[in-house]
Amino acid sequence: MRATLIYGAGDVRVEDVPDPVLREPTDAVVRVPRSCICGSDLWPYAAREHTEHGDRMGHEFLGVVEDVGSEVSGLKAGDVVVAPFVWSDGTCEFCREGLQTSCRHGGQWGAPGVDGGQGEAVRVPQAQGTLVKLPVGEDSALLASLLTLSDVFCTGHHAAVTAGVGPRTTVTVIGDGAVGLSAVLAAKRLGAERIILMGHHKDRTDLGREFGATEVVPARGDEGIARVRELTGGDGTHAVLECVGLEAAIVTAFGVVRDGGVVSRVGAPQYVNVRMDAALFMRNVTLTGGVAPARAYIEELLPDVLDGAVEPGRVFDRTVGLQDVPDGYRAMAAREALKVLIRP
Amino acid sequence: MRATLIYGAGDVRVEDVPDPVLREPTDAVVRVPRSCICGSDLWPYAAREHTEHGDRMGHEFLGVVEDVGSEVSGLKAGDVVVAPFVWSDGTCEFCREGLQTSCRHGGQWGAPGVDGGQGEAVRVPQAQGTLVKLPVGEDSALLASLLTLSDVFCTGHHAAVTAGVGPRTTVTVIGDGAVGLSAVLAAKRLGAERIILMGHHKDRTDLGREFGATEVVPARGDEGIARVRELTGGDGTHAVLECVGLEAAIVTAFGVVRDGGVVSRVGAPQYVNVRMDAALFMRNVTLTGGVAPARAYIEELLPDVLDGAVEPGRVFDRTVGLQDVPDGYRAMAAREALKVLIRP
Repeated sequence: MRATLIYGAGDVRVEDVPDPVLREPTDAVVRVPRSCICGSDLWPYAAREHTEHGDRMGHEFLGVVEDVGSEVSGLKAGDVVVAPFVWSDGTCEFCREGLQTSCRHGGQWGAPGVDGGQGEAVRVPQAQGTLVKLPVGEDSALLASLLTLSDVFCTGHHAAVTAGVGPRTTVTVIGDGAVGLSAVLAAKRLGAERIILMGHHKDRTDLGREFGATEVVPARGDEGIARVRELTGGDGTHAVLECVGLEAAIVTAFGVVRDGGVVSRVGAPQYVNVRMDAALFMRNVTLTGGVAPARAYIEELLPDVLDGAVEPGRVFDRTVGLQDVPDGYRAMAAREALKVLIRP
Repeated sequence: MRATLIYGAGDVRVEDVPDPVLREPTDAVVRVPRSCICGSDLWPYAAREHTEHGDRMGHEFLGVVEDVGSEVSGLKAGDVVVAPFVWSDGTCEFCREGLQTSCRHGGQWGAPGVDGGQGEAVRVPQAQGTLVKLPVGEDSALLASLLTLSDVFCTGHHAAVTAGVGPRTTVTVIGDGAVGLSAVLAAKRLGAERIILMGHHKDRTDLGREFGATEVVPARGDEGIARVRELTGGDGTHAVLECVGLEAAIVTAFGVVRDGGVVSRVGAPQYVNVRMDAALFMRNVTLTGGVAPARAYIEELLPDVLDGAVEPGRVFDRTVGLQDVPDGYRAMAAREALKVLIRP
């Protein structure tokens, strides 16, 4: 089959790889009708060291089940499924607590010996714990929105949930990428009435407004902080959803959070240290978040996607075939595209 | 009257200062039957620059009301009261939310123009919002435990509450000072069945065991981390209460926290940066806590102190008169005393 590999910064290729087959009785093999490129794929695309062998890419995909191992129940050939962006057994202590990203027998797509999602098919380890069956056919008009349950919408939701967003919470979302816009949508869905979106790409913040942002702050740094404070009577907001991953975004987050408030970070950290000094201690500011256990949220979010109450798939503004995935990376890195959908 | 001033590192003096009088209609004046020295007083005692004028010290005290301003209701001469370690109006948005440490009209004891607690009497700004009347006489045997409601027991409680401690939570407490021991007591009171106390002063950890610690880990650094992990099947504990304030304690906290767990810091930070890198992001670790809004907790904790269900006053292991406060500082700094009670 054909699949996507990265050989180093700026060097993404679509190549022939072995067809996936069942290896363990807990595996499934799925054909991939839709996958996509993640903002976090752009970090290796920007900076990965060159390798001879190449690494498989992609961690967000829908599947159509082709084959299941002997220990997999509840799934059969032809089922349409969504795969969260890590695989997990569904039975260990962490999985039962809803922290499948720390599963004792789980792992990452594209790790050595594991397929990536940006290809024609995938061997799914721990298939029963990992995959969620969707009540749609593979011609459904909802596929794009359903695909966001694999990562980006669940990641926005994780930010909102861990920050304690609810009807009485004021919210700032930092970043107008697909995660930031998903966080706006998630905060709105959880009842937040005031959502300030910090972002400076007008086409993106326009979609953010449609998703529920009540105000947009294009300014960055100290100017952006001052603007959010001005909008909130000097206090900042109860919840800040940091959807970028750069140190500057964390600094902004602490600048716009209200005393006693929560910063939730879901942007993959490109920093090591965070300034959490005595001033933040005196303000009782919390830093939470982390990698989203998407698997924990899919059943909760699915009904709203199925009935159209939310349309997170609107973050996709370009669709490519598998052969054009390298150009999809280029377009996202160049900010020509917000998020690229792949139809293999 | 006589009161305590600090003139620089190691230089604490008891001197004559003006008697407190009502200045604002929201003030009260209280005589101080008990106060104490806080672990956080040892930071300036270790490192404060020399000054000519001296700064007033002490932020934990009980009072006997002598006079109240015209706008203070609910308090009258002779009432025994406890003062939380910041004063607050009790009416602003932050106070109503239980974050009196961020009160819009509050402040710190010993700030310019404000008395410290380590003296014979105190002018209490915002007295009605600040003081809590105690149903005891000033000869009560409970005074020591009641005094801990001004700071140290509430601070331990804040650590436990913000870390989400409950019956199903495993807990590590870092630090065997008075705050650490109070955190043990608070965690036990909230139902935690397993409390690992990291501390290496045997007399203190012995009291920690009486307060509810189920295990004591005297080792520090990597060895201490390894020991806590060993005790918890490799996972660490759900909650970690960081009661020291040094960077090494924060590093230890992240080392012993379970994936998805919470580190709550209540030790006044002697650091600026915290390493919260991608590894902690992948583990969904939260850093919370901060300066404790003691005022928010006093009514909740008071009944258990009054009926003897908890005896937080056992952290006091030395009592001095006001004239001997400088020796009290010396003894605490030298670790001869755990916490020093002052009877002016």
